Amino acid sequence: MSELTIWTLDWTPAAPRGFVRDLRLRWACEEAGLPYAVRTIPFEGRETNHLDRQPFGQVPFLDDGGLKMFESGAALLHLAGKSETLMPTDPGGAAETLQWTIAALNSIEMVSVPWWFLKITGDEDNDLTGWMGKRLDQLEDILREREWLVSGRFTVADLLMADVLRIPAVRGFGDRPASEAYVTRMTDRPAFKKAKADQVALYEAADKERKAG
Amino acid sequence: MSELTIWTLDWTPAAPRGFVRDLRLRWACEEAGLPYAVRTIPFEGRETNHLDRQPFGQVPFLDDGGLKMFESGAALLHLAGKSETLMPTDPGGAAETLQWTIAALNSIEMVSVPWWFLKITGDEDNDLTGWMGKRLDQLEDILREREWLVSGRFTVADLLMADVLRIPAVRGFGDRPASEAYVTRMTDRPAFKKAKADQVALYEAADKERKAG
Repeated sequence: MSELTIWTLDWTPAAPRGFVRDLRLRWACEEAGLPYAVRTIPFEGRETNHLDRQPFGQVPFLDDGGLKMFESGAALLHLAGKSETLMPTDPGGAAETLQWTIAALNSIEMVSVPWWFLKITGDEDNDLTGWMGKRLDQLEDILREREWLVSGRFTVADLLMADVLRIPAVRGFGDRPASEAYVTRMTDRPAFKKAKADQVALYEAADKERKAG
Repeated sequence: MSELTIWTLDWTPAAPRGFVRDLRLRWACEEAGLPYAVRTIPFEGRETNHLDRQPFGQVPFLDDGGLKMFESGAALLHLAGKSETLMPTDPGGAAETLQWTIAALNSIEMVSVPWWFLKITGDEDNDLTGWMGKRLDQLEDILREREWLVSGRFTVADLLMADVLRIPAVRGFGDRPASEAYVTRMTDRPAFKKAKADQVALYEAADKERKAG
């Protein structure tokens, strides 16, 4: 039995496959060599069937030997505490990793997710577009100067930032070559590829069960 | 000399006073009894005059004896590591504090800030309103059942969640008595009142200097 269990949906439509956020936790475990199991909750009724585990009705959530956590960003920082691969142990490196992890969540994703939400719900040129472009430009300035966000090497901050930036609408928004190269570098990592393939395989198997059922 | 220095703007217009995010760090230091100094960067040219310290041109940023951090959420978690007042030291309590701190940033503020941005830029009934209402309802369900988010006592997660919820537009959006009582409880704390008064006093003094200058 693995001590770490990542919980996600048992099925999704085709579009979000490869992007469901359990991938972040799978990726972190793969990078760090942490053994983990994946368990699922039903897609049907997903908005209310696990409010006792995730009060906003989302996935993923994590079980670490009985310690339960939701919020993928929090679970990533929790996992990072288990492995120097994900977060340096020196105070400066740890603080910078924390800083850039929160920047991915609260300076980039806080704009990119609502921007993308407005876009897919029909408001293509929505009022968050200027803000989105500015944040991506500021990040491009950073990524032009460095290969990794922290300490000259891969950390969980890169994992999360790349996961935020790889959403097709975000990645395709404007010509930002340093950011594009950064996302390519991160998603070329074997741990990312395995995490993504495993998520897609879960949902393809679920398709077959649905057809057989 | 204090080891902790909180950096913020040297002046702001009237509207954001009492809401500039250095308040989050002042509040945390006041709760924890951590001595700190406040230093400022010029309001004029603020978008580009401190990109070396905060690559998105925002405030606050923190200096902890030479260790430099931006992102108020990251700085709060860093400060929480210094004081059990802000974060329990048992693994379960620490994980839950991390979880709810990230929830404030990425499940509530990720919706509330863009929603409020669209509102103040003229789109009163914008397309994020439904999502905003849903998240606040989910949080109301939580706050109806408990006085504090974590471990039956105040933590940095309450500090941040209350700071996110106290924005007037968010606080005034719908009748959610448990959330309202929660914000009142948190903002009645002496540490919050001192942090807010000190921020307002800084900007009132700056007004006088500007008039004299």
